[in-house]
Amino acid sequence: MTVAERSRIDWAPIIDAFSAAIGSDRVVRRKEEILVYECDGLTSYRQRPAVVVLPKTTEQVAAAVKICDRFQVPFVARGAGTGLSGGALPIEDSVLIVTATMNQILSVDLDNQRVVVQPGVINNWVTQAVSGAGFYYAPDPSSQSVCSVGGNVAENSGGVHCLKYGVTTNHVLGLKVVLPTGDIVNLGGEVAETPGYDLCGLFVGSEGTLGIATEITLRILKAPQSIQVLLADFTSVEAAGAAVSAITSAGIIPAGLEMMDNFSLNAVEDVVATNCYPRDAAAILLIEIDGLPAEVEATGDRIANLCRQNGARTITIATDADERLRLWKGRKAAFAAMGKLSPDYYVQDGVIPRTQLPYVLKEIEALGDKHGYRVANVFHAGDGNLHPLILYDNAIPGQLEQVEDLGGDILKLCVRVGGSISGEHGIGADKRCYMPDMFSPTDLETMSWVRKAIDPEMLANPTKLLPTPKTCGEAAQNQAKATFPEVERY
Amino acid sequence: MTVAERSRIDWAPIIDAFSAAIGSDRVVRRKEEILVYECDGLTSYRQRPAVVVLPKTTEQVAAAVKICDRFQVPFVARGAGTGLSGGALPIEDSVLIVTATMNQILSVDLDNQRVVVQPGVINNWVTQAVSGAGFYYAPDPSSQSVCSVGGNVAENSGGVHCLKYGVTTNHVLGLKVVLPTGDIVNLGGEVAETPGYDLCGLFVGSEGTLGIATEITLRILKAPQSIQVLLADFTSVEAAGAAVSAITSAGIIPAGLEMMDNFSLNAVEDVVATNCYPRDAAAILLIEIDGLPAEVEATGDRIANLCRQNGARTITIATDADERLRLWKGRKAAFAAMGKLSPDYYVQDGVIPRTQLPYVLKEIEALGDKHGYRVANVFHAGDGNLHPLILYDNAIPGQLEQVEDLGGDILKLCVRVGGSISGEHGIGADKRCYMPDMFSPTDLETMSWVRKAIDPEMLANPTKLLPTPKTCGEAAQNQAKATFPEVERY
Repeated sequence: MTVAERSRIDWAPIIDAFSAAIGSDRVVRRKEEILVYECDGLTSYRQRPAVVVLPKTTEQVAAAVKICDRFQVPFVARGAGTGLSGGALPIEDSVLIVTATMNQILSVDLDNQRVVVQPGVINNWVTQAVSGAGFYYAPDPSSQSVCSVGGNVAENSGGVHCLKYGVTTNHVLGLKVVLPTGDIVNLGGEVAETPGYDLCGLFVGSEGTLGIATEITLRILKAPQSIQVLLADFTSVEAAGAAVSAITSAGIIPAGLEMMDNFSLNAVEDVVATNCYPRDAAAILLIEIDGLPAEVEATGDRIANLCRQNGARTITIATDADERLRLWKGRKAAFAAMGKLSPDYYVQDGVIPRTQLPYVLKEIEALGDKHGYRVANVFHAGDGNLHPLILYDNAIPGQLEQVEDLGGDILKLCVRVGGSISGEHGIGADKRCYMPDMFSPTDLETMSWVRKAIDPEMLANPTKLLPTPKTCGEAAQNQAKATFPEVERY
Repeated sequence: MTVAERSRIDWAPIIDAFSAAIGSDRVVRRKEEILVYECDGLTSYRQRPAVVVLPKTTEQVAAAVKICDRFQVPFVARGAGTGLSGGALPIEDSVLIVTATMNQILSVDLDNQRVVVQPGVINNWVTQAVSGAGFYYAPDPSSQSVCSVGGNVAENSGGVHCLKYGVTTNHVLGLKVVLPTGDIVNLGGEVAETPGYDLCGLFVGSEGTLGIATEITLRILKAPQSIQVLLADFTSVEAAGAAVSAITSAGIIPAGLEMMDNFSLNAVEDVVATNCYPRDAAAILLIEIDGLPAEVEATGDRIANLCRQNGARTITIATDADERLRLWKGRKAAFAAMGKLSPDYYVQDGVIPRTQLPYVLKEIEALGDKHGYRVANVFHAGDGNLHPLILYDNAIPGQLEQVEDLGGDILKLCVRVGGSISGEHGIGADKRCYMPDMFSPTDLETMSWVRKAIDPEMLANPTKLLPTPKTCGEAAQNQAKATFPEVERY
């Protein structure tokens, strides 16, 4: 289908079919109502879908997908719309299937540590539902009070505590999925390992390109008895990096191990005034340990010693909840603080081997200087998951493109040292042009075989995740990402 | 290709092609030499391949697979041949590609806790290579001194310590794979999470049906500072099961949590005389805890209390290495002990939710009585991974078939209570007829789409893992497994 052909799509019978299948009150067509769906958390890209549908049940999702298949129109799934890579960005002349109103917790089985939810359930509702009994749901993206579990599954979201507990895929036992054909399948199961191909693992992180999860079985964990947070400050980034290496090399896996550089911590102090981050530190580490009280105490002592051995100036330890909150407050407010310091910021998301931390942070600074932008670093140091924040002003023409180029250079740096172009935000629309930097043509072709096996008509979020030959060509010429090229089939 | 057509295969040019590609000394054709490859650890099935090839490099594996593709003959990959579900069982008129001689450890990166190995490397060589520096490789199948990492990847093997540390898939960061087309791809990477579809996770556990892994990047862990083993004995299986639930419900995840029933522990004492398993106990638990000394001590105290609260008669605690070994000795010798008590035994492998332990163990006993066979239970209680051992005599005609029926009934029981038909041994040739008990036709069809996307000619281990319509029909009629039906394409 060419662009010209698509522009001739007659939406009337499609809208009628949706109305008949899921009710006309659940079909949004008016331009002013559709406006709120034109972007996700990656606000620099905007595109209105042709129609938005709001199913409530698995069967309604299946009916909606079957209508898309029948009329051969692409669809994009959207949860809460907080994703940072444009995974839920609508495509022109597409159907947006919004799962936000599928927000029921379907079952709680404390004995077997499982909770079954609909995809629109907000991440921290899961913990709220089980915390009374002493359990919690581990993956904790910064957006956990607003992001949906369905979106977490699509993007394989991480968070501060994923260092010790793993990202979303490690906590999803099973999925009920509506395939792009409209068929309903059950992937995974109720126990940790099921035989056959791990299609549940394949689906997590597939960014809406293999179908829509409509029921998600999550593993919940027993809340730790004791928690301690340490703040260590360093006079050089290298020393902070060395302390991170020393801690992990000692076989210690803290619950969280975060780093903020001088620029970030000063930005935070300017805006939220925690009064506990030393403004002259080159970098600080925030380290959370959890477990049995004896374990936490012993581990805390070891971590404090390792920090001191690696040049920490001061170490602050918080054990009670208020004190812990105070130490975390600046880290949690870091992105918001950047928003107050600069009209706009662009968050990048890359992974590097931990041993490369000091080198990569220096290189990022040099890249920022070269491009003429300030880069703040606030990130999950323990698993080498960087979040460089590039400050810019979208109102100045050309800045977005320059910032994206800088972001791309940072990703290529991550790949060059043996890392990855995404740690937890996904590829989405934003980064698919960098996939060829990380994967060979044969690697990418193998992924596309799998995609086509599950979605032969290429209707499920077709312009996301995998590059098309055209976008790859553009990436090779460093001209990528300015526009969304059409996918092959159009 | 029909059976008659296959029997007319002219192997001479195929053998010539193998000899030219990888050297005639690496092509085994003589019947008496091929004999050793006619089965894996599932010795009740035997089938000779037409030819065995012994490649040494990724390129030689790719060349061998391309020859199979060119001549359209199926191939089966085999590591050390210790698998228990017949995953490496040859197919008639097939090529057996043996990776046992690809046994080099290619690189060790202690800083980033990674080891890259060829598939023929024996599981515990990995730990041996890094233990001097204080690291180890966690997945530890009972066969770890003889099984290969390639086979572990194919079957997603588990082991005693997988309760805390996860099965093979949780420890494989990346794979170099020869696809069934002969193309070489890199799946996953060097860091824990990579973007795009998780094809590395898809490949682990795919039992040779999606290609052959030729380089495997493994995550290694820091060895724990302190280890403690507790032996608790109970006067009822229910009480032991309740203790397991109490421990896990308390949020404690021991390194290992094993159960042996009265029959098993007496069999073990008869054969290896550990003199530490009370012969009158209905069941014993063996619980290993690891970590920092303070953590291990505190956790050990809590576990001992929970066992006592749930009716444990005595608790023996071992902290030094010799004492720990003595407590484990009987568990490790359990399968061998059965072999001394009975001419043959059949090991089943199923998973149940932990809460169902007491019920399922009673049901298994009842099923054994019904079929007239004694079933011993030695298993990973912590993760609900059962290993019922059915004692029989293969020399008595009909016993194998009856035992397989009993094994099938046990698997169906596992599925009925919300569990799985395999925990760690895989599906292979042995259990694919039970896949329809666990998965819907659409679920299985989705798996077969993925299989066909990667292996369109269905040449890679075609009669394993997934049932064909014919085998499914047979399973439905409870007549499955007596023979290997041909796959669809023949």
